[in-house]
Amino acid sequence: MAQKVKTAITPTREEDYPEWYQQVVKAADMAENSPVRGCMVIKPWGYALWENIQHELDDMFKASGVKNAYFPLFIPLRFLEKEAEHVEGFAKECAVVTHHRLEKGPNGGLVPGGPLTEPLVVRPTSETIIGDAFAKWVTSYRDLPLLINQWANVVRWEMRTRIFLRTSEFLWQEGHTAHATAQEARDRTSMMLTVYARLAEELLAMPVLRGSKSPAERFPGAVDTQCIEAMMQDRKALQAGTSHFLGQNFAKASGIRFQNAEEKEELAWTTSWGASTRLIGGVIMTHGDDDGLVLPPRIAPAQIVLLPIAHKEEDRPNVMAYVDQLAAELGQTLYHGRPLRVEVDRRDIGGARGWEWIKKGVPLRLEIGPRDIASDAVFVGRRDKAHKEKSAMGRAQFIAQVGGLLDEIQANLLARARAFREANTRPIDDRGEFYAYFTPQNAEKPEIHGGFAMAHWCGAAECEGKIKEDLTVTVRCIPFDAPEEAGRCICCGKESRRRVVFAKAY
Amino acid sequence: MAQKVKTAITPTREEDYPEWYQQVVKAADMAENSPVRGCMVIKPWGYALWENIQHELDDMFKASGVKNAYFPLFIPLRFLEKEAEHVEGFAKECAVVTHHRLEKGPNGGLVPGGPLTEPLVVRPTSETIIGDAFAKWVTSYRDLPLLINQWANVVRWEMRTRIFLRTSEFLWQEGHTAHATAQEARDRTSMMLTVYARLAEELLAMPVLRGSKSPAERFPGAVDTQCIEAMMQDRKALQAGTSHFLGQNFAKASGIRFQNAEEKEELAWTTSWGASTRLIGGVIMTHGDDDGLVLPPRIAPAQIVLLPIAHKEEDRPNVMAYVDQLAAELGQTLYHGRPLRVEVDRRDIGGARGWEWIKKGVPLRLEIGPRDIASDAVFVGRRDKAHKEKSAMGRAQFIAQVGGLLDEIQANLLARARAFREANTRPIDDRGEFYAYFTPQNAEKPEIHGGFAMAHWCGAAECEGKIKEDLTVTVRCIPFDAPEEAGRCICCGKESRRRVVFAKAY
Repeated sequence: MAQKVKTAITPTREEDYPEWYQQVVKAADMAENSPVRGCMVIKPWGYALWENIQHELDDMFKASGVKNAYFPLFIPLRFLEKEAEHVEGFAKECAVVTHHRLEKGPNGGLVPGGPLTEPLVVRPTSETIIGDAFAKWVTSYRDLPLLINQWANVVRWEMRTRIFLRTSEFLWQEGHTAHATAQEARDRTSMMLTVYARLAEELLAMPVLRGSKSPAERFPGAVDTQCIEAMMQDRKALQAGTSHFLGQNFAKASGIRFQNAEEKEELAWTTSWGASTRLIGGVIMTHGDDDGLVLPPRIAPAQIVLLPIAHKEEDRPNVMAYVDQLAAELGQTLYHGRPLRVEVDRRDIGGARGWEWIKKGVPLRLEIGPRDIASDAVFVGRRDKAHKEKSAMGRAQFIAQVGGLLDEIQANLLARARAFREANTRPIDDRGEFYAYFTPQNAEKPEIHGGFAMAHWCGAAECEGKIKEDLTVTVRCIPFDAPEEAGRCICCGKESRRRVVFAKAY
Repeated sequence: MAQKVKTAITPTREEDYPEWYQQVVKAADMAENSPVRGCMVIKPWGYALWENIQHELDDMFKASGVKNAYFPLFIPLRFLEKEAEHVEGFAKECAVVTHHRLEKGPNGGLVPGGPLTEPLVVRPTSETIIGDAFAKWVTSYRDLPLLINQWANVVRWEMRTRIFLRTSEFLWQEGHTAHATAQEARDRTSMMLTVYARLAEELLAMPVLRGSKSPAERFPGAVDTQCIEAMMQDRKALQAGTSHFLGQNFAKASGIRFQNAEEKEELAWTTSWGASTRLIGGVIMTHGDDDGLVLPPRIAPAQIVLLPIAHKEEDRPNVMAYVDQLAAELGQTLYHGRPLRVEVDRRDIGGARGWEWIKKGVPLRLEIGPRDIASDAVFVGRRDKAHKEKSAMGRAQFIAQVGGLLDEIQANLLARARAFREANTRPIDDRGEFYAYFTPQNAEKPEIHGGFAMAHWCGAAECEGKIKEDLTVTVRCIPFDAPEEAGRCICCGKESRRRVVFAKAY
């Protein structure tokens, strides 16, 4: 039947990218919408991806001296109000707990009872509640730096939600650090952005641009927000991680003070940084194809799936034994320091079986039947190649080369994504060209536009605002590596000294 | 200074057990109360303990075929109401979200805005919301068994809270499974109880009794609640994990139906099972002594702390190099399949340093000074022995024997706790003796009482209720291994066929 199906996913990316995305999530069985508005259920295949991202990030955090802790889900309203910009930034999307029990209502049904004297906000982020703890923990310069991370759920009541990319509840980590000097805090901000960039490029095979946000796009209350931005296949940008230098704003709001070596009291300098389950959406939209999910080997829940083939009942025991033995051997092989993750699919359901694993994005599929066993070989399909392009390999050769094969797939995915981004990034100096670049050519496909534009910007909020209003295009970042270069603002024509990245964004 | 201090913790366990507990938590820097009523902040030392418990449990779950997933934090009120006993059991302690934003109030401050059309309950447990997903996921017997776990925070609005033991928000895992037959679901219920018992005994060195709860103590909505019960050092019981056979109650409420092999529709049989951060409280109260926390090596955040001693500045480089080299070597040594967890404390703060690690409960403390280095030896202190009882060991010998030493400490802690429980468990057949056993001898120390009583109970809720009212003593469990034995109910004198465990409980 496989031959009749042109692509495993309908519609294709070109036909309808947003709908393709939903269908990939569904076909790979990663997540689904829940009956709770804007909240998702993360299914085992999606959650395993998140666990792998967690392990990798957690190891990098710990290697940099960060320790994990856990802070309350609820934030008293008065805490959130301590930092004016901060509460302003989150007030419109806060879930508020106002009661602490249910009681019989007038109609016999249950209604909220036991009103709280002070409403509690379900954390949208934890700067204020963690700041309160830090204020108690820090008294002397000897207590600094304080390097803390928490893995948690957060809630931001979004009006328009999309699985993984924008949900009312999502999972993330939020790091919070306090330092004795501004420089140390700035260095930590950069260091954690580098961790995110390494996660994105080395593990998710997702090339990213690194830079600072414009003031309008900063985290509410931050002095500097640094970010990594990736290009999705519809040429829109995805912010994939942020690291904030908070100056002394939150230290002042929470009272994080320390005695310096000269016994004088100072305010600490703080940072915060986060990455979330939205990264999973980024993986889907960076690598997925019209047959479904394509997973980078380093974070795939299964890197290899073994598909025993035994058309005759008498072949079954022999084939299964061979496959189980191979799975055990592979499972003991280390790949980048971790045991290979191997699945065996014993179901006898014909061609649908192989397609399921294609749609789930598993990097290597191994078909093993009696003839392969007779020649001590395996039949290998790679997810980064066409599904029909399979090749036989000797069993021993496969085991010896499996790490190299996976690395090759990983590198291919990264190179492919990088080439795509480069092909869809253009320096633009002319305002008309800029507007044309971001204006959909086809009214039926409003999502199709140019990509990333490297253009001059004078730095004025008015210009940024006008472009956003006209085109729904924003300054994604002021890249760290952009050379100084004289030019004129793409909007107002005033002088500018560097190009910034403009794009439509998720 | 250490010599002047009789014990590192004031008060001692005998002087005031509840206060001793709080002081141990504080001295080990494990957690603290938060400004949010009833919620705790779990600090790095406490959280690392939780992470180790998580890793061990997670491995055992996965080995039994369970997969992790994640479900929404919020439960619509109508879901909770689907199972009558269930909602009845949790209604009084639900945090209720009623609004989705903050807006300017009449006095200028922020107040809840955007009322929700249906209130959302912050999950106290997730049977109903997970049941809703299972109803969609299960259509055929081929979809069963469905074996899912989630690591999550839950909220139960408690009036009297105590760090780790009873907090309004806590961290836990909740497993949820659906099966085609009652027997399979019952088997899974028992299997997961065994996982908890293994965690408790093999890893936490906490001996437990296994049994079923009486109907009055069952999880709201369960047909059978199985539990593990441990004895704390104040002879009170701690429920350390529960596994519920839910029959078809929740399947009916959520509509989890499947077509059997004969193509007839049936209701599934479900289970749920959970263990939480309360286990950390159990570890503290099982092993702690008057010098603070005592950690079982298998789950200690650090199993070994290295304390370099260099009184003269010129010795420092040499001592530090030796210690770093030893730490690196130990960090590459596997202990029960995981790398040893080693801390090096470089601070030059005198005797206080060693005491800090005693209070944190680290199993092995190694003091290393120039003389030890000269004889290529280390000076070893064990947390399960008196703090002065240290002994020299050759470096190579230590490395060769470290796993054995840790196993010995682990076994000692378990044996000690088991002996304590046995010394404080008594079969009681006389009502007067039973009442005397549970009546405090000293009015100033109401917590001091007998311990566990193995007594006959007729099974009537009235008898159970009377004992609870008179003595605050409950049936902790109906033990699986109790032999059939004729006797008379300790309360009413009616016939009974087996003894149950009575105790005061956390």
